[in-house]
Amino acid sequence: MLKTIYYPETAAWKDLCRRPVLNTGELDQLMNEIFDQVELFGDIALKNFTKIFEKRETNSFLVPSDEINAAGAGLSDELKQAIADAAGNIRTFHSVFNKGSEVIETTKGVQCWQRKLPIERVGLYIPGGSAPLFSTVLMLAIPAEIAGCEDIILCTPAGPDGKVNEAVLFTANLVGVTKIFALGGAQAIAAMAIGTESIPKVDKIFGPGNQYVTSAKQYAARSYCAIDLPAGPSEVLVIADETADPDFVAADLLSQAEHGEDSQVILLTTSMKMVDNVNKVIIKQLELLPRAAVAAKALQNSLTILLHNLDEAMQFSNLYAPEHLILASDKAEDLALKVKNAGSVFIGHYSPESAGDYASGTNHTLPTNGFARAYSGLTTESFLKSISFQQLSAQGLKNIGNTIELMAEAEQLEAHKYAVSVRLAKLNKP
Amino acid sequence: MLKTIYYPETAAWKDLCRRPVLNTGELDQLMNEIFDQVELFGDIALKNFTKIFEKRETNSFLVPSDEINAAGAGLSDELKQAIADAAGNIRTFHSVFNKGSEVIETTKGVQCWQRKLPIERVGLYIPGGSAPLFSTVLMLAIPAEIAGCEDIILCTPAGPDGKVNEAVLFTANLVGVTKIFALGGAQAIAAMAIGTESIPKVDKIFGPGNQYVTSAKQYAARSYCAIDLPAGPSEVLVIADETADPDFVAADLLSQAEHGEDSQVILLTTSMKMVDNVNKVIIKQLELLPRAAVAAKALQNSLTILLHNLDEAMQFSNLYAPEHLILASDKAEDLALKVKNAGSVFIGHYSPESAGDYASGTNHTLPTNGFARAYSGLTTESFLKSISFQQLSAQGLKNIGNTIELMAEAEQLEAHKYAVSVRLAKLNKP
Repeated sequence: MLKTIYYPETAAWKDLCRRPVLNTGELDQLMNEIFDQVELFGDIALKNFTKIFEKRETNSFLVPSDEINAAGAGLSDELKQAIADAAGNIRTFHSVFNKGSEVIETTKGVQCWQRKLPIERVGLYIPGGSAPLFSTVLMLAIPAEIAGCEDIILCTPAGPDGKVNEAVLFTANLVGVTKIFALGGAQAIAAMAIGTESIPKVDKIFGPGNQYVTSAKQYAARSYCAIDLPAGPSEVLVIADETADPDFVAADLLSQAEHGEDSQVILLTTSMKMVDNVNKVIIKQLELLPRAAVAAKALQNSLTILLHNLDEAMQFSNLYAPEHLILASDKAEDLALKVKNAGSVFIGHYSPESAGDYASGTNHTLPTNGFARAYSGLTTESFLKSISFQQLSAQGLKNIGNTIELMAEAEQLEAHKYAVSVRLAKLNKP
Repeated sequence: MLKTIYYPETAAWKDLCRRPVLNTGELDQLMNEIFDQVELFGDIALKNFTKIFEKRETNSFLVPSDEINAAGAGLSDELKQAIADAAGNIRTFHSVFNKGSEVIETTKGVQCWQRKLPIERVGLYIPGGSAPLFSTVLMLAIPAEIAGCEDIILCTPAGPDGKVNEAVLFTANLVGVTKIFALGGAQAIAAMAIGTESIPKVDKIFGPGNQYVTSAKQYAARSYCAIDLPAGPSEVLVIADETADPDFVAADLLSQAEHGEDSQVILLTTSMKMVDNVNKVIIKQLELLPRAAVAAKALQNSLTILLHNLDEAMQFSNLYAPEHLILASDKAEDLALKVKNAGSVFIGHYSPESAGDYASGTNHTLPTNGFARAYSGLTTESFLKSISFQQLSAQGLKNIGNTIELMAEAEQLEAHKYAVSVRLAKLNKP
């Protein structure tokens, strides 16, 4: 099923790690127009775009609080409990974060420190579709709430009936979202980036979306506000040795493949037998899947790579920098210590990717497309910014004043030097 | 000198906080061409662009190690000592950083944790010009070294003689830069983003630059690698009450104004007398400045705003979100607790901005243009990424398996559910 590469030479690895090229600038002109219209006409532009793109008339975007409070009536008690349980684990994990540093005296009288403060206004985007991702509401809103963000607004497209999905409303209500807007697409991103009569401007936008939403976020990031992460197709890399269970490995590969036709699925194995077994199981499991067509398409671009040993596998994985890395081996704990680049790591035979997608407590918003080499997945710190403070006493300035003067002079910034000299002169007056 | 606004109504604040619009997409087509050429022709393209943009022939970019080791002979011992002292303070401050979390058990048998690992390959850019900013070498390379980045390369333009500024070489050699390349401009950014025969590809690019460098970084960030911060003109906001010294305030405003004609300088004061006094002193101090013409131009776009009290001043400052915030008041310590948005804060009468620019220990690479609402200045964590790990025992999966199954089913992701079910089925076999 998966294309197999046998013992590739190291020189060939780089090519094997290549992702499909993202056409990032393609929609720039459209985005330019959408942002300009939203800037000029505010809510009217949002209504027009909703009519054009969603074939839907709308008068207001804010979901009324009685509709939010009523949400959940149509959900099973089991599902509501599951959402609450997952929220509990996510909350536990995200509650541990760095709040800044103690005061550090770098030179006698020169005190410096960092404080991490919440980003005041954040905007969350949740895509629509037949099965809206209420799990993503948990992953975005819980760390925002823990960080202490003042305004946590959420935009998500309404269905043809003008209503927002009930599970999304129920979940948002559970986790501190302050306002929910029935507004989707690039126009929702533009609205949050710019601000309109209805939609408040935010400082940072989070969340997944289709190519239009992704382009709009990228456009917003250039001049308007911050965004969480650059987007690319979802990925999993599984490292499986002979101790792995082919049923588990196949299921993990398929759970990534069902995300979308462009999903990237890679199996690294040291066992020839594993290649055959996993392929057999995949064929069997595919038959059971409602989204088999999507998964099968994704598998066409995917790879099994046979390598000599687990060390090689870890080296390849670090070069590839997968969004999700599953270590399906009795030696998983040792391998985990060798991870250099990955979004999230799943250790051992009982840690499927879906655990992290929903309920282990880690965040499922992760860097794709090799960005794990430099970007982190979402954490509570994604909803904070760090501010540095310094306080010099008169003696502190005396102690480092000459250093500053010498350096400023060498950089030909005389006013920088003078800001110190004028103070030292007064301090040194008898 | 500075245009003065008397007691503006709160409704007018937003307009007063507006920065000059950045034309971010303007150079896209040029960038597209530069990146394409570098991708296709590597070093040959770099040589061509250097010839076109810098009117300079070059055969190789790598600065030889004997040239690096010899650097410093032309610098005074005092300056070398000042650089070493500043490096010491910067190292002390940046050595305190978060390395990740302990293991957190979110549910019995479900262990999750974070590890912060160095970004392996980072590229630093230092602009050229008559007085290259060796202080920026300290601010970029020291946290990279502390973070543990494996490759720390530095690109900086050579002068007409083909040589890199001696102070830049000396400083880079002091703080763990692994390779220095005499290469400047947008082509240097493209080279680090893509990789050529000479210049290694990096995972993240740091450092300031002119509009071409800035555009190239922004272009690189779209598909190639991460960058430190979006760029805008440098800014200071000073809050001064009647306890401030007008000589100090004027000097601080001018030290920002001399950076460039587009520098943003704002004085908030509660004292009518301070307005007059600062204006008088500015005229006097300007006469002493070699860069008086630049500073005077910058002051034309700058503002003094008279407000009723310090609380109002803090509210305005938090709305403006300045890169540098100077609190020139006997009450500075109290005011510092009210900061919500700023890059770096300077507390009290003896903490000029130049202290942080050079030697207090904090980083001088900071968010401009209101980006301080969502972005942090550089810290050691800017050179790290965070990876999440999870390890479920068989019992752990049993404990949260049903939660995952219910949520995956509700999101119509059956393969996600099956990855759990197949494991639970085996575990539950007698």
